[in-house]
Amino acid sequence: MTVNTPADDLYRLVMTVEPPAVETPFEAASRRFLFGEIWGRPDLGIRDRRLVSLACVAAADAATPIAGHVYAALRSGDLTIEQLNEVTLHFAVYCGWPKASFLEQTVRAQWQRLHEERGQEAPAWPTLTAEDLGPEDRAERIRGGQEEFRSVNVIPAPPSDSPYFYAGILNFVFGHVWRRPGLSRRERRLVTIPCVGASDAVGPIFSHVGSALESGDVSYEEMQEIILHFSAYYGFAKGEVLHDAARHWRAGRS
Amino acid sequence: MTVNTPADDLYRLVMTVEPPAVETPFEAASRRFLFGEIWGRPDLGIRDRRLVSLACVAAADAATPIAGHVYAALRSGDLTIEQLNEVTLHFAVYCGWPKASFLEQTVRAQWQRLHEERGQEAPAWPTLTAEDLGPEDRAERIRGGQEEFRSVNVIPAPPSDSPYFYAGILNFVFGHVWRRPGLSRRERRLVTIPCVGASDAVGPIFSHVGSALESGDVSYEEMQEIILHFSAYYGFAKGEVLHDAARHWRAGRS
Amino acid sequence: MTVNTPADDLYRLVMTVEPPAVETPFEAASRRFLFGEIWGRPDLGIRDRRLVSLACVAAADAATPIAGHVYAALRSGDLTIEQLNEVTLHFAVYCGWPKASFLEQTVRAQWQRLHEERGQEAPAWPTLTAEDLGPEDRAERIRGGQEEFRSVNVIPAPPSDSPYFYAGILNFVFGHVWRRPGLSRRERRLVTIPCVGASDAVGPIFSHVGSALESGDVSYEEMQEIILHFSAYYGFAKGEVLHDAARHWRAGRS
Repeated sequence: MTVNTPADDLYRLVMTVEPPAVETPFEAASRRFLFGEIWGRPDLGIRDRRLVSLACVAAADAATPIAGHVYAALRSGDLTIEQLNEVTLHFAVYCGWPKASFLEQTVRAQWQRLHEERGQEAPAWPTLTAEDLGPEDRAERIRGGQEEFRSVNVIPAPPSDSPYFYAGILNFVFGHVWRRPGLSRRERRLVTIPCVGASDAVGPIFSHVGSALESGDVSYEEMQEIILHFSAYYGFAKGEVLHDAARHWRAGRS
Repeated sequence: MTVNTPADDLYRLVMTVEPPAVETPFEAASRRFLFGEIWGRPDLGIRDRRLVSLACVAAADAATPIAGHVYAALRSGDLTIEQLNEVTLHFAVYCGWPKASFLEQTVRAQWQRLHEERGQEAPAWPTLTAEDLGPEDRAERIRGGQEEFRSVNVIPAPPSDSPYFYAGILNFVFGHVWRRPGLSRRERRLVTIPCVGASDAVGPIFSHVGSALESGDVSYEEMQEIILHFSAYYGFAKGEVLHDAARHWRAGRS
Repeated sequence: MTVNTPADDLYRLVMTVEPPAVETPFEAASRRFLFGEIWGRPDLGIRDRRLVSLACVAAADAATPIAGHVYAALRSGDLTIEQLNEVTLHFAVYCGWPKASFLEQTVRAQWQRLHEERGQEAPAWPTLTAEDLGPEDRAERIRGGQEEFRSVNVIPAPPSDSPYFYAGILNFVFGHVWRRPGLSRRERRLVTIPCVGASDAVGPIFSHVGSALESGDVSYEEMQEIILHFSAYYGFAKGEVLHDAARHWRAGRS
């Protein structure tokens, strides 16, 4: 006899497929903990949690979960194919291009799978134009990057005195990626925070957690939910550093 | 001509299969270093080293080594299927569910492979009951989690004032997982230490290395062997942080 | 009494400082294995091994080893400050910007430390000009990126149909970073291979190991040394995937 639980119902809603039978302690605990407790919590909606989850499973190189979460994001209608492609680019910056290439392939494969299951031809793949690459003028890119850096990080832009800062951070990461229209700044934060959490880089963790809060893009309650959601998907050990960063920001406010 | 070395003999004992021929510097060095030096060292038995190794290869997303170590753990009889399933759940908490899902699949596949090779039907897969999920009463879970946290970490339990601490750490990690009967506390430490080492989270590294020593569950000599074994499988670069944590604990004692 | 070993001598040569006393199994094994065996092996020189080591320790988030290897690269004269800054940018692409930010800071700090120890004022930090950002014309960047992609990867360039491929891979990674003059293509491969090895991305691992060999930039014997050196610093578990990739390439040749 199979008993349908509230966790099973949430599994269906989130993953958009029937929950598999539970046979091991891992499966039992993950069903109850992830779907019975985490996904249904208040203060962060399911679409927001999808962005956090996608970054986590992609950072973890977990092929089956990556496929499952990409498929569910598309099938639920919560993320368009354009938005998922944009998530891939943003993820590439924060967790590296090699990890992102698997996400890129998976998005294509799940997009195909979804339409095959529906007996439909997949709609034309989104096309891009040269304008998609942003301003050509170098000075304008750097100025835009400095402004975006300040606005995202709520601190002054770094000097243009190393290839990492100049050609990388100012020219590309903030001069182009963060300024792309495909995702809102808040959405980019929901991808960035789990990525820096996975990357163990303490400086960027404190900076991105703090600036997300400082800017008001993410409330303290939302941040706590992002951190718990991240911990469930990427482990409590790494979650602790994000948690420290959020408390550090709060302590600095009082 | 093939020469049988002591490293080959230990390879057979540990991996439970014939050692493959050695053709490259990688193979020569890993045979000689891992099996000629590490696995045969004193102060930590082979079964304990299996727990450390399993956590390392699972954290490293290394498909072939994961399969090899799971198979050998089962074939040697050092770990039962129930214990391996329990390792998977414990690993999930510290390195995240997506990485653990690959370990979970591998345990099933190797269990099947082992019995096929023996020409046997695999015994009935262990069944779980609702009791396996621990107490339903929330207050009881949190009380149990606070007590378990104190007992494992040898410091006071954290406040119930964030979702990470309350729903995560107290309710689930210590209120449920660490209290499960399937593995002893010492065994859970042998899984946890490599997991936090792989996660680069300095706080959890110092806390888990220190409390394993402080509690007496792991002696200083055993800890040094855990750290060297971890370094062989997960790299000396990361091993150095665990090593710092052990020396830090010792310095605080003298 | 302290005995000076050949491993101690090589430690001095590589790390450019006196080897610390050896007190634990971790220290004894790392001295003997890393400096008694790995660094002195044939087929890959010390300067090449520095590039591999820098990528490994930076990927591993290992603060003390990162500082030690950056300092030694500068003090030995094997890498200029311009080359180290270029390594940081290249590393950022493959392991993500958050991890690279720590390397960036460390390069600045160790550059300062080196000159302070010498009682010298640090020379003027390298300046960059707008030309450092490469061609302004978008079409030219993409064409250059396609050509560079083909030349580095020895396969056709990907389509320009997703932000990841178009704005990322073609425009920035191959249209800019790989084409920068600060490091040779072979040097960039020595950084890239450990980065993809650390990232667990099977596709990029097979692609970068295969193309490094196919292009002739790295010989099979050199690749085997890169893989063993990587395994020593980043663990044998992850090393095995690189090793599989090298053997796969060789099998395809015969």
